Amino acid sequence: MSELRKDPVVDRWVIITDDASRAPGQLEKKARPQASGDLCPFCPGNEHLCPPDILTNKNSADGNHWSLRVIPNRSPILMVEEELKRSGEGLYDKISGVGANEVIIETSRHAVRQSQMELHELENIFWAYRDRILDLKKDSRIRYVLVYKNQGQSAGATVEDHQYSIIMALPIVPRVIMEELEGARKHFEYKDRCIYCDIIQQELSQESRIVAETRHFVAIQPFAPRMAFETWIIPKRHSARFVEIEPTEIHEAAILMKEVLAKLDLALSDPDYNYVIHAAPFGEDCEKYYHWHIEILPRMSRFTGFELGSDLFINATPPEEAARFLKTISI
Amino acid sequence: MSELRKDPVVDRWVIITDDASRAPGQLEKKARPQASGDLCPFCPGNEHLCPPDILTNKNSADGNHWSLRVIPNRSPILMVEEELKRSGEGLYDKISGVGANEVIIETSRHAVRQSQMELHELENIFWAYRDRILDLKKDSRIRYVLVYKNQGQSAGATVEDHQYSIIMALPIVPRVIMEELEGARKHFEYKDRCIYCDIIQQELSQESRIVAETRHFVAIQPFAPRMAFETWIIPKRHSARFVEIEPTEIHEAAILMKEVLAKLDLALSDPDYNYVIHAAPFGEDCEKYYHWHIEILPRMSRFTGFELGSDLFINATPPEEAARFLKTISI
Repeated sequence: MSELRKDPVVDRWVIITDDASRAPGQLEKKARPQASGDLCPFCPGNEHLCPPDILTNKNSADGNHWSLRVIPNRSPILMVEEELKRSGEGLYDKISGVGANEVIIETSRHAVRQSQMELHELENIFWAYRDRILDLKKDSRIRYVLVYKNQGQSAGATVEDHQYSIIMALPIVPRVIMEELEGARKHFEYKDRCIYCDIIQQELSQESRIVAETRHFVAIQPFAPRMAFETWIIPKRHSARFVEIEPTEIHEAAILMKEVLAKLDLALSDPDYNYVIHAAPFGEDCEKYYHWHIEILPRMSRFTGFELGSDLFINATPPEEAARFLKTISI
Repeated sequence: MSELRKDPVVDRWVIITDDASRAPGQLEKKARPQASGDLCPFCPGNEHLCPPDILTNKNSADGNHWSLRVIPNRSPILMVEEELKRSGEGLYDKISGVGANEVIIETSRHAVRQSQMELHELENIFWAYRDRILDLKKDSRIRYVLVYKNQGQSAGATVEDHQYSIIMALPIVPRVIMEELEGARKHFEYKDRCIYCDIIQQELSQESRIVAETRHFVAIQPFAPRMAFETWIIPKRHSARFVEIEPTEIHEAAILMKEVLAKLDLALSDPDYNYVIHAAPFGEDCEKYYHWHIEILPRMSRFTGFELGSDLFINATPPEEAARFLKTISI
């Protein structure tokens, strides 16, 4: 049983679980990566090591094999079986751990980084994101579905080589998204324009932070990147909701994602990274001013007391230099 | 030359430096810890390896030796020699890198963790924090002085064994502090009370999250801790400004800090951690509702795409269990 707790001073939520394996005294300093001799739980033939599939993509060439699977997390942090209960404890507020926690096994092939996948595999991943979000949306207690990927141990991956993404359905809207909505709403009230559309326009005219471009998408180094080589992929068509992505756009998103990740892999020698889809929360009337996008965060340095204590970041790679460097890399 | 850049959507500042040693292509995946055979730049006799002292505490017993030194960072990220310049670039805003970046060498003794230091050494550290903040406050361009410590490699320490803290004087108020001010102000407007004073009162009456207590301070596991064993040290006397700490309070803060860090070191086998002083910004009229405190953040797990993408945290150690466990540890 887990619960969401809110800091009484700032709007920061924390999910408190009481996973017995992580009880005080049992804590390990480092996440233990899967040993190379271990059986990979995500490889074909080892399906019995995982909970039953929520979604299975059959390989079109050979109907007997799967090409992508979605499974529930074996030890889910949030569960739909919970009852949504809000309660107080003096000054403090909490919510029961309602939600869902799924794993997308991105491909049946072991140890193939996304940059090396076939285009149709990357398209499959985007389709799976969309399908799972639409399905989870049916539960009216879910306010946001966070879709993200941890690539590599320093980015938080617990299964080392076999590629997967994570889906976390939440009964609250994450603070990051709330702040973006608020900033975008203010801009819209003042200018009657979407701030992300304005960013795209300025970036395309300035050129210095563009990494790559397709007809429907642009990949930029943002003006104020937290991390070296932080890269955003933004659709040119204004749309608040990732789930409204069209088939041609999924095709192009896959092309651009592959290009950007291949450049980052070459530039930074297969870096660990996270990526996260930012999209409008369910039931939030923000179609006019919000704009979905993907943020890719290479994990080239550690967070210190500076970042934790200030929410400021120090980045020793100006985005203009990073963009210039990535443009020179041919894949 | 560095500059502060603001994200155009959310109020997030980033310091962009162009440190040539971290130019694209030169990036290393991991910070390189100091090799054990290297000369320690912070040990007595090696002072020539550092820039000249800003502040030197002489050892009272033997006037020839120092007991604590403050030096400028050899490659400062922010500099007082810069001119404060605010400028725009289309949608975007930036400020020149005005500020200061100092290192407090906490003791002349090599490889002694704070939990093992003498009380007078810990008191010296608090006095040095206070003196440096008061000195940097004289520069009217400085709006906040962030004081923090990176203990161990995974917490961002670059000199491994010899203990030091960091001072970062900033031309802006960090977002973490702005949000605390805002939350505390709202509570005060509604209740006419300081929210931190209310937290202390509730914690002392609930008892379940108290770790240790002295006459003037209390150490708690906060209700919504981001990290396992996150510990806050809060003065019982309402005061917005750390620099107004009194000599008896510094003595007690040192006692409590030593006790808490010793318990954490025993409970978690000398964990890496950060701590950060949270205090009122210069020139901010918040005496009535803000309350300075210290947050200690053990680094037992990594941040994943979940934390980076949501600003939510998952913590598998309920603070009540952590407090119960720490109380059983005798030092």
